[in-house]
Amino acid sequence: MSVTAEIPTQDLEARLSPGALVTDRDVIDSYASDKALFCPAGQALALVRARTVDDVVAVMSFATQHHIPVVTQGARTGLSGAANAVDGGLLLNVAAMDQVLEIDEVNQTCRVQPGVINQDLKTALAEHGLAYPPDPGSVAISTIGGNVATNAGGMCCVKYGVTKDYVRAMTVVLADGTVTKLGRPTAKGVAGLDLAALFVGSEGTLGTIVEVTLALKPALTQPITAVGIFPDTASAGRTVTEYMGSGANLSMLEFIDGPSVAMINAYGDFGLPDDVGALLLVQSDAKGAGAMEELEAFRRVAESNGGSEVFVSDDPADSQMLVAARRAVAPAMEKYAHTRGGGELVDDVCVPRSALGEFFERLALIDARFDVEVATAGHAGDGNMHPSVVFDAGDEAQVSQAQEAFAAIMQLGLDLGGTITGEHGVGFLKREWLGRELDAGARLMHTQIKNALDPLGILNPGKMFGV
Amino acid sequence: MSVTAEIPTQDLEARLSPGALVTDRDVIDSYASDKALFCPAGQALALVRARTVDDVVAVMSFATQHHIPVVTQGARTGLSGAANAVDGGLLLNVAAMDQVLEIDEVNQTCRVQPGVINQDLKTALAEHGLAYPPDPGSVAISTIGGNVATNAGGMCCVKYGVTKDYVRAMTVVLADGTVTKLGRPTAKGVAGLDLAALFVGSEGTLGTIVEVTLALKPALTQPITAVGIFPDTASAGRTVTEYMGSGANLSMLEFIDGPSVAMINAYGDFGLPDDVGALLLVQSDAKGAGAMEELEAFRRVAESNGGSEVFVSDDPADSQMLVAARRAVAPAMEKYAHTRGGGELVDDVCVPRSALGEFFERLALIDARFDVEVATAGHAGDGNMHPSVVFDAGDEAQVSQAQEAFAAIMQLGLDLGGTITGEHGVGFLKREWLGRELDAGARLMHTQIKNALDPLGILNPGKMFGV
Repeated sequence: MSVTAEIPTQDLEARLSPGALVTDRDVIDSYASDKALFCPAGQALALVRARTVDDVVAVMSFATQHHIPVVTQGARTGLSGAANAVDGGLLLNVAAMDQVLEIDEVNQTCRVQPGVINQDLKTALAEHGLAYPPDPGSVAISTIGGNVATNAGGMCCVKYGVTKDYVRAMTVVLADGTVTKLGRPTAKGVAGLDLAALFVGSEGTLGTIVEVTLALKPALTQPITAVGIFPDTASAGRTVTEYMGSGANLSMLEFIDGPSVAMINAYGDFGLPDDVGALLLVQSDAKGAGAMEELEAFRRVAESNGGSEVFVSDDPADSQMLVAARRAVAPAMEKYAHTRGGGELVDDVCVPRSALGEFFERLALIDARFDVEVATAGHAGDGNMHPSVVFDAGDEAQVSQAQEAFAAIMQLGLDLGGTITGEHGVGFLKREWLGRELDAGARLMHTQIKNALDPLGILNPGKMFGV
Repeated sequence: MSVTAEIPTQDLEARLSPGALVTDRDVIDSYASDKALFCPAGQALALVRARTVDDVVAVMSFATQHHIPVVTQGARTGLSGAANAVDGGLLLNVAAMDQVLEIDEVNQTCRVQPGVINQDLKTALAEHGLAYPPDPGSVAISTIGGNVATNAGGMCCVKYGVTKDYVRAMTVVLADGTVTKLGRPTAKGVAGLDLAALFVGSEGTLGTIVEVTLALKPALTQPITAVGIFPDTASAGRTVTEYMGSGANLSMLEFIDGPSVAMINAYGDFGLPDDVGALLLVQSDAKGAGAMEELEAFRRVAESNGGSEVFVSDDPADSQMLVAARRAVAPAMEKYAHTRGGGELVDDVCVPRSALGEFFERLALIDARFDVEVATAGHAGDGNMHPSVVFDAGDEAQVSQAQEAFAAIMQLGLDLGGTITGEHGVGFLKREWLGRELDAGARLMHTQIKNALDPLGILNPGKMFGV
């Protein structure tokens, strides 16, 4: 890879849509990273803004011919460095392939190009009385291709599952430029290995997704919302455990700890109280009286577990405001981190729901042990927590402490029978930790499959499998 | 494989649980087949009735050492020959590994051994207020391990999805005897490739499943039922298409054609009318008034599409009887086929729901073209149809006609944008057809992954990938 100057990018340009190849260094470098911290970005040879499947094929064929890396990327909203440039490689950006190709009301499916923004798809589907539930925090800016490549989650998952639950079929371009269809658009299908499922969450290490067929739901019912206020995280954790164990089928169950609530209140007025130990935001979109029944049941469980107050509202404006408050966690933390030296590492562990109480207890110990601040929000109904480590990025000691705290949180996730990443992915950030989560057999299977499908190792090298 | 007499099975016996190795030829041969027709069964070297994971490891290690095939099987209720013996190989039967290891009410998961019968699990879960929805026709006799290995479906899938939607994690034994955990028990998790999903539906070609962690649902609401009577299949097909397109969220939508209804009525009295063109059986388990609203909506759509009568009942006895009638299709057809010379080939194509009308039209042409009888029932809500070809198994010309009709039905499925198998699997029966459904790239990926994970080709050779 050291002789990139000899790679004839003009040959590639001749095979691409006009203007798709970018060799301007400043532009290339502006595409070099996603939103992850502590993930180095290499110096790419060139950027290709693909417009067609043929562009993607040309990139893969060229990369195979010259044995150079290909890093596929969409909106670069990822939090693990999976979309970061690799030295001497091609950045293959598919964000411009952004067409909704088909919306099929009878079969409740759609076919989309990878660059379609999640929220844009939701908007387009709403006109047809259909819904695509997965709603990662990046819903307004991330692409379906990226969502599929990382198996994105969100707040809906407690009831509606994650991205993989909606992927029926896809078209991918393999390392050698072969275009192939995986899966099928039908509701059922068991012909052969589930290769579409293998590609979901594969983070660009097996091929590039150029089209996706998604299963859809009928338009969801307008939810009603409750917010429960707790004196501490423990009582909130107990509430989640007991309530979910009761067989509730909520459409949202989100956790925000006290420090995060304070950051939100400093960021904007969403009607949240001050000085709370923790909040739970709950929604039910059950039909008819079912929704209010579910939220009243939540109130009873919260109150019997030490919750200090529970507000239930069927006013859509309240619902929207509370969801906006939850979505404000990320920018509010970013703003707060800015005042503390700019460093913020967002973790993403997922533990069994029954372990949430112990998780909060031991997280407090981590917070106390390291010279950083930890604030946590997350998808409590799934046991998927996002502790954010806030630190002074200009202070080497703090940076080191932050990285240790970040690692301790992942270890805590593993200790409690969970995973190092519930929805953000491995990428570069957690590649060492992937090896700790998997046993020897699973690690070897990863390598065997990667080597079988990408024998030259040109697809997103150093990500996921890296170590 | 021709010198099996030299394979020292006594060495294997020494590594197994006492009594696990069976070398009695009659017993071995009695385990040689599943329920598929036209699938040859080889002569196995020995049968191992595994009781522990160590038994499975011993089988794999021995098979790798001696380069002999391993065919994993459970209750042998499959319909594709995937569990059939291979010459000179080991039959690895895991039906005796039948313990429910854990039921976790808070996390709504369970851990089970592969030999647990689906219905037994349902019964055990009901005591905890939990449900495992997948309900293949074999629900009373098939194992969870087999259900996972074939990604079994059933009647619930239109609302509750298929087996893969419930598999969180599993422990598998690989070809060389390595024991490894795939997936994770948490609600979310994206650490690495989704290898658990790759194993779902892999039909014993990649390894043997020795433990499964399943996601569960809160106990389902008692459904109410409707039966719609139609003068012909076309009006039933139109009804399915229009009704499903309306955003209904039924818990069952089954189709039975006239000839199948006649067979059911000859088999037992389930209260079905005579002389109908087709029936649709519909259930809703929506809460409160929602269920009746859904079924009344069904009535309106059925009547506007030529349905002659629709009966709606909220009497659980009626529901049970109608479901029993649907489940009686298989034995009723078997009985009928017995009177016609004993031959019955059950197909399993799945098409987009919107294509059901055209499917029925072209199926009638196939019925007319070949000198056999075709009777059809299926999971209309999923577009998953089971046309049965009934013929005289003692008449060579009829056998040939039956096989041609069976093939024509699969081709019809592909022509309509569907698949050759919605839920029964590829096994031996459809291995040539798998190659027609997949494109060249997907075929190559299958081979690459198979070779990577089973380099000696000892795991269920000749199945799925066979041709």
